[in-house]
Amino acid sequence: METNKYAERIEALRALMRGRGWDAVIVGGSDPHQSEYPAERWKQVRWLTGFTGEAGDVVVTLDHAGLWTDSRYFIQAVEQLEGTGVVLHKTRVPEQVLIPEWLRSRLDEGAVVAFDSLCTSAQDGRELGGTFALAGVPDLLSVLWEDRPGVPQTSIFRIKAGESREEKMEWLRGELSERGCDAILLSALDEIAWLLNVRASDIEYNPMVISYLLVGQDFAKWFVLKEEVEDPVTEETFDALSGDGIELLPYAEVGLELSAFEGRLWLDSTTANCELRGVCSCEVVEAPSPVARRKEQKSPQEIEWIREAHLRDGAAVEKFLYWLEKSVQAGKRVSEWDAALKLGQYRAEIEDYQGDSFETISAYGPSGALPHYITPRTDAPLIEPRGLYLCDSGGQYLSGTTDITRTVPMGECTAEEIRDYTLVLKAHIGLATAVFPAGTPGGRIDAAARLPLWRSLMDYGHGTGHGVGFFLGVHEGPHQIRQNLDPTPMVEGMVTSDEPGLYREGKHGIRHENLLLTVDAGTTEFGHFLRFEPLTMCHFDTSALDLNLLDKWEIDWLNEYNSSVFEHLGTLLDEDVLEWLRVKTAPVGLES
Amino acid sequence: METNKYAERIEALRALMRGRGWDAVIVGGSDPHQSEYPAERWKQVRWLTGFTGEAGDVVVTLDHAGLWTDSRYFIQAVEQLEGTGVVLHKTRVPEQVLIPEWLRSRLDEGAVVAFDSLCTSAQDGRELGGTFALAGVPDLLSVLWEDRPGVPQTSIFRIKAGESREEKMEWLRGELSERGCDAILLSALDEIAWLLNVRASDIEYNPMVISYLLVGQDFAKWFVLKEEVEDPVTEETFDALSGDGIELLPYAEVGLELSAFEGRLWLDSTTANCELRGVCSCEVVEAPSPVARRKEQKSPQEIEWIREAHLRDGAAVEKFLYWLEKSVQAGKRVSEWDAALKLGQYRAEIEDYQGDSFETISAYGPSGALPHYITPRTDAPLIEPRGLYLCDSGGQYLSGTTDITRTVPMGECTAEEIRDYTLVLKAHIGLATAVFPAGTPGGRIDAAARLPLWRSLMDYGHGTGHGVGFFLGVHEGPHQIRQNLDPTPMVEGMVTSDEPGLYREGKHGIRHENLLLTVDAGTTEFGHFLRFEPLTMCHFDTSALDLNLLDKWEIDWLNEYNSSVFEHLGTLLDEDVLEWLRVKTAPVGLES
Repeated sequence: METNKYAERIEALRALMRGRGWDAVIVGGSDPHQSEYPAERWKQVRWLTGFTGEAGDVVVTLDHAGLWTDSRYFIQAVEQLEGTGVVLHKTRVPEQVLIPEWLRSRLDEGAVVAFDSLCTSAQDGRELGGTFALAGVPDLLSVLWEDRPGVPQTSIFRIKAGESREEKMEWLRGELSERGCDAILLSALDEIAWLLNVRASDIEYNPMVISYLLVGQDFAKWFVLKEEVEDPVTEETFDALSGDGIELLPYAEVGLELSAFEGRLWLDSTTANCELRGVCSCEVVEAPSPVARRKEQKSPQEIEWIREAHLRDGAAVEKFLYWLEKSVQAGKRVSEWDAALKLGQYRAEIEDYQGDSFETISAYGPSGALPHYITPRTDAPLIEPRGLYLCDSGGQYLSGTTDITRTVPMGECTAEEIRDYTLVLKAHIGLATAVFPAGTPGGRIDAAARLPLWRSLMDYGHGTGHGVGFFLGVHEGPHQIRQNLDPTPMVEGMVTSDEPGLYREGKHGIRHENLLLTVDAGTTEFGHFLRFEPLTMCHFDTSALDLNLLDKWEIDWLNEYNSSVFEHLGTLLDEDVLEWLRVKTAPVGLES
Repeated sequence: METNKYAERIEALRALMRGRGWDAVIVGGSDPHQSEYPAERWKQVRWLTGFTGEAGDVVVTLDHAGLWTDSRYFIQAVEQLEGTGVVLHKTRVPEQVLIPEWLRSRLDEGAVVAFDSLCTSAQDGRELGGTFALAGVPDLLSVLWEDRPGVPQTSIFRIKAGESREEKMEWLRGELSERGCDAILLSALDEIAWLLNVRASDIEYNPMVISYLLVGQDFAKWFVLKEEVEDPVTEETFDALSGDGIELLPYAEVGLELSAFEGRLWLDSTTANCELRGVCSCEVVEAPSPVARRKEQKSPQEIEWIREAHLRDGAAVEKFLYWLEKSVQAGKRVSEWDAALKLGQYRAEIEDYQGDSFETISAYGPSGALPHYITPRTDAPLIEPRGLYLCDSGGQYLSGTTDITRTVPMGECTAEEIRDYTLVLKAHIGLATAVFPAGTPGGRIDAAARLPLWRSLMDYGHGTGHGVGFFLGVHEGPHQIRQNLDPTPMVEGMVTSDEPGLYREGKHGIRHENLLLTVDAGTTEFGHFLRFEPLTMCHFDTSALDLNLLDKWEIDWLNEYNSSVFEHLGTLLDEDVLEWLRVKTAPVGLES
């Protein structure tokens, strides 16, 4: 019988636990910056259990090992955990028992719970507390993990930006004054990249620099130095920043610096880790970082660039859809993976392309029913000349970040496919055309997308919209449009996805996604209103629609959007693709 | 120069403050039970300042007197406060400065703030704390208020109820066990009335008994005795309840009883007052009362009665609308107050009528632009044969509580009136036809009503829906459908109003209100869904509609609703009203 390497690693961890007197160890899925997508070094859940989902936490006790993850990953988790001895604990289901509650039910009062104090936010660490003795251990797994990757260090470059570093620094120092603080520690990687107008490739798909930044009224200390820098681009960047008065310090020395800091320190306990919070002996003001909210409001210059990026990105997707339709109709063997590669090639032709913004989901038929499907690199399913193909992808460009999902018919579709396809488009249009008072939280307009589906007793288990950065994370908080009661208000200049979906296990999945810009809709005696403008420029296929399920104004919106796509992409497409697109974007339902 | 009696009362209060060493006094608008509508004895804001709005709190310092109230009452407050020296402080506006913050800005640390500890909830009392010394004084104003009314004591009668007192008590004792408590104190008047299946008329429009109820596993103590009881109905009720093992005790002795109570006591700090919380020396568990949520879910028997009540109530409103239209068209002088009286007469003809559920809002033209307009008893504006008339009213019946608003054209309407009328109806239909997952909070479906208005840059400043009791309060919490992030989930059996509106100052007001019952919509692979069924049975006028602003399914809904009204009310109306109603409910827009 083959021994499972993950089961072995868990046993090794238990040996460590016995030696240290730990009753439980929690291993989370994040890094010291609370990044949603960590670098290889911090993929600790994967190393320990083999589970590769983007969200998951592990608890190991002396007689149990469990993975907590949500419905997006149930099927994947069951497959990947086989033979490891790790048990799946479902979250985001009504009967869920979350880790703190589970621990309380399994451990005695005073039991010792160890966790990685670097990879746990100060807030989460505090919430763990209560009846247990907590042992916060930085890099807890390092003693077991041979050949653990180091902290990545890729080339750091300056970018064209909507506002200069000086303007941003001045604004941040104003915020400091207003709150009566002497300095602020920035931990979130996208906040640092935004503030300094720099990018790198330390994390796949996420063009950020792993570092910390401490900003005071008359100093800025960037904890960014890892190994010796030999790369000229990075050197140039460092020279420029040094010239602007930004001090460059070793990444590992941030704790030392903080422990010696005197004054009032602003720190966001949702992104600063436990370890750093613990070393502070100064007065600490825990409050949300102002940078998070500020960077969501794109500047006019950024918006102009973002629009351009979407034209080029949309043209690449149109080329891809043209190629796909022609290839499949001609009887060529095209697998989901082949399609993903082809789309990547079209994107790579774009001048300022910097890579994808996440791993392309290329899913035919039943594959599409998994909202976070991972297209296999070998033996991927073939795309047949019937039913629905779903492709969710995005690019990183110097001019912005894109994220688009198109679901297209590859030939004849069933009545159910047509109905689902149409109702999801109705849901998309519901949010795309929403108007709402300035300051409305996203959760209060989520229903604009869901109501058309709810009325048919259908729903989807994910959010409707997430923020998107400017050549930064494809997921950008804090605002969101989903089924929750988060109070973050919608404001002008935000970029948000509109991506309702529908998933029928074993049959098909549908998602229609554009990125939307929040713009002024006007002020009347009833208040100041906002609306959305689509940034994504790529047609929605009209051949799989049941027009009887759409109201006239919805058909009008669709025709207008498709015609605007044709107009905007004209100069970016070859004649054959353009002719094809002319047919694809021809108005529908005019007789009604 | 005439001396203002309110200014005098405020000066008398200041004399008291100097004597006692108080720097500020807070006078609130509620009673010892945190009722939304207090009895005369507790209309302290009105006694002190003359302000009669339903929501308002007063703060008096040695050099300032202020009234804090929301936008519904700004105009009224300015008028009523003239000459009193009381300044209006606006709430629910972006620049609002609420009382605690205002006090902090005006008083020194350690200043003494006095408040009525009977009329302040335990939770609100705690939130007042901080840098001030608090002086909680029961019946604070009594020493100044000569001839202050006593605690009311009206006839207490038993009602037909969906579940017996025994069933309800058993359920409540189960809740006590589950939470490991020995007793629960009920303070909210509607909770006590619901649990004991009794009603009275202690508060206008609110058929409740001013009392407290302490329930343990083997006892129930009802603090209800005030003066000598001479009324045979009350005696009968008391005998019946005593026979069920419910001990009857003086209202004034609840504090004494609580101070002596030993054991774990469950108390809802949002309805229990500061004074009572303060006397408890036992272990107190502060948690929402389970009765509040339970009584929102009407039993099948209650639902049957409620439907019947709405048929009779709807017929009364139809008779009224017929009379109004005929009278105004015939050139008769009908004032808003005449109309309100007439409607009251039609309701009074109903067999089990127990009074109105709130003061009728009878508002023609510009009067309708005030959502909480109070129709003057003398010199009320006349209803002209043009424009819009709004009537918001409701009845209390042994079979249930109603609340209905109809806005009807009295003759020719302007294009703006027609557009507004149509879009508010579109908003009403939006919520009436909403389907949503079981457990969705009301705030997440509020947009179903608002989106049609938002899309035209319009909005209304009040909630869309409130709960309604069974022959109880016309406002019943905790669930609501409004612009907030309250998490209370929608469940089957709730009765909720659907009342979007639109108000143009100096021109007109429109509100279309039905009560809706939450019912099962079905369960699919996507979850369990709920929908609404209209309880209110009274046609919506179709002559002031711009059908071009409605989608086909909205017109279908309207035609179906109106036709169902005609069918249901047939046997309750005389021939002439019925013939008129046949025309009023004739389907519209069939050609489209």
